[in-house]
Amino acid sequence: MPTYRLTIAYDGSGFFGYAKQPQVRTVQGDLEAALFLHTGTVDTVVAGRTDKGVHATEQVISFRAEELDGQRVQRSLNSMLAPNIAIRRIARVDGGFHARFSATGRAYVYRIHNAAVHDPFLTPVMWTYEPQLDAVAMDAAAQCLVGEHDFAAFCRKRGDAPMVRRVEWVRWRRSADVVEMSIGANAFCHQMVRSVVALSVEIGTGRMEVADMQRVLDSGDRAIAKGAAPPQGLTLVAVSYGDESLPRPLWIPETS
Amino acid sequence: MPTYRLTIAYDGSGFFGYAKQPQVRTVQGDLEAALFLHTGTVDTVVAGRTDKGVHATEQVISFRAEELDGQRVQRSLNSMLAPNIAIRRIARVDGGFHARFSATGRAYVYRIHNAAVHDPFLTPVMWTYEPQLDAVAMDAAAQCLVGEHDFAAFCRKRGDAPMVRRVEWVRWRRSADVVEMSIGANAFCHQMVRSVVALSVEIGTGRMEVADMQRVLDSGDRAIAKGAAPPQGLTLVAVSYGDESLPRPLWIPETS
Repeated sequence: MPTYRLTIAYDGSGFFGYAKQPQVRTVQGDLEAALFLHTGTVDTVVAGRTDKGVHATEQVISFRAEELDGQRVQRSLNSMLAPNIAIRRIARVDGGFHARFSATGRAYVYRIHNAAVHDPFLTPVMWTYEPQLDAVAMDAAAQCLVGEHDFAAFCRKRGDAPMVRRVEWVRWRRSADVVEMSIGANAFCHQMVRSVVALSVEIGTGRMEVADMQRVLDSGDRAIAKGAAPPQGLTLVAVSYGDESLPRPLWIPETS
Repeated sequence: MPTYRLTIAYDGSGFFGYAKQPQVRTVQGDLEAALFLHTGTVDTVVAGRTDKGVHATEQVISFRAEELDGQRVQRSLNSMLAPNIAIRRIARVDGGFHARFSATGRAYVYRIHNAAVHDPFLTPVMWTYEPQLDAVAMDAAAQCLVGEHDFAAFCRKRGDAPMVRRVEWVRWRRSADVVEMSIGANAFCHQMVRSVVALSVEIGTGRMEVADMQRVLDSGDRAIAKGAAPPQGLTLVAVSYGDESLPRPLWIPETS
């Protein structure tokens, strides 16, 4: 049977996360229900399982099915899944392709609306946070995360799975009252991005120091980190495969 | 009793419009319920009643109440009304101020996502429309609306109320796959902006001609217009009072 690669976007607000669960609405549940009409039962594989409330603009899914008319399936799925999920692309790929195991890089963005008054048009996709944040300090602190490290201090433990990951870049910047982090890595362990954000915010308010990021990383102790920032600020923005390089935002040069 | 002016923003998606109605969630209903805790029963007046699903970034409301601590009331209302409504400003104003009758100008924006695949992050605030639109033709057609005219062809009749309005500017432009209209007038009659959009789209696809805008305007006949575009693309973006000039977007020079 041919293998297909779907690239999808979703607003995570109305879902209990990506992964299928009984009795609640999930992205995978909705997607497989819609696919069922074209393919019968299908097992889909996802590049990055996102938690409840987390968004994606470029999530990748793979599955095997009988020959499909890509354009027709895309149109049909989009009419069933609108407005919260969109099928951006569908492609027939090499039989060895596996959305999760073939992925060699993932990139996320986390956005904070740093303002006293929330904005109804930003609250679905940003964390509204009032105390003034020093994005320059947050950016400086985060640089110690680049490279290969054991991220145990920033990850929810899942059995004995290793928590060594290789971060390619992590940068914070401010643009008016939006403070955002862009991070790329070979992979992320559970809640890693949101835990880095929570500690960064402590540093950004001055309650902790720039050097505390390194100290927490070295400790390997999740208990001394600062929990996880809220999910709605987080968006999966890219997944790369094989030799493809993970697309960096234009504001982050290759050398940084 | 002092008079107060509130400037608020709201995402209209979850509301049955601005105006209070029994049994359904409305912006006015939520706002007055929250105000009640500070002022007791209060009658609020609004600059522009918006329909079900329509948004606002700068809606103005006035009311009279005993002396209030503005900052404290703003913070309290915001914590009750988040995330869908935000109180942007609260000010004590001259006793003669009336949000509706004192208003001398209103501006709206209408946004169309002109693409084959919807975007989950744009669907709440734009109309997703697939056929390619010619924004240059739409812009040319709309220019006949500038000035004082009877807009009966574009308005839902409400009793014998006159439908003469003075449009200060109306412009369409394209920016990547977003096609947007900005319009400013002394006031609008019911469904006027969305009716202009619906006819503009007919012109943008080539199903109607540039000259048809003038023809429909002159006819005064709503039956030959093209109904109203969906509400989620529409946002009230400014209200002006007295001699204040209505703020134009930077891309629309005063002379146009």
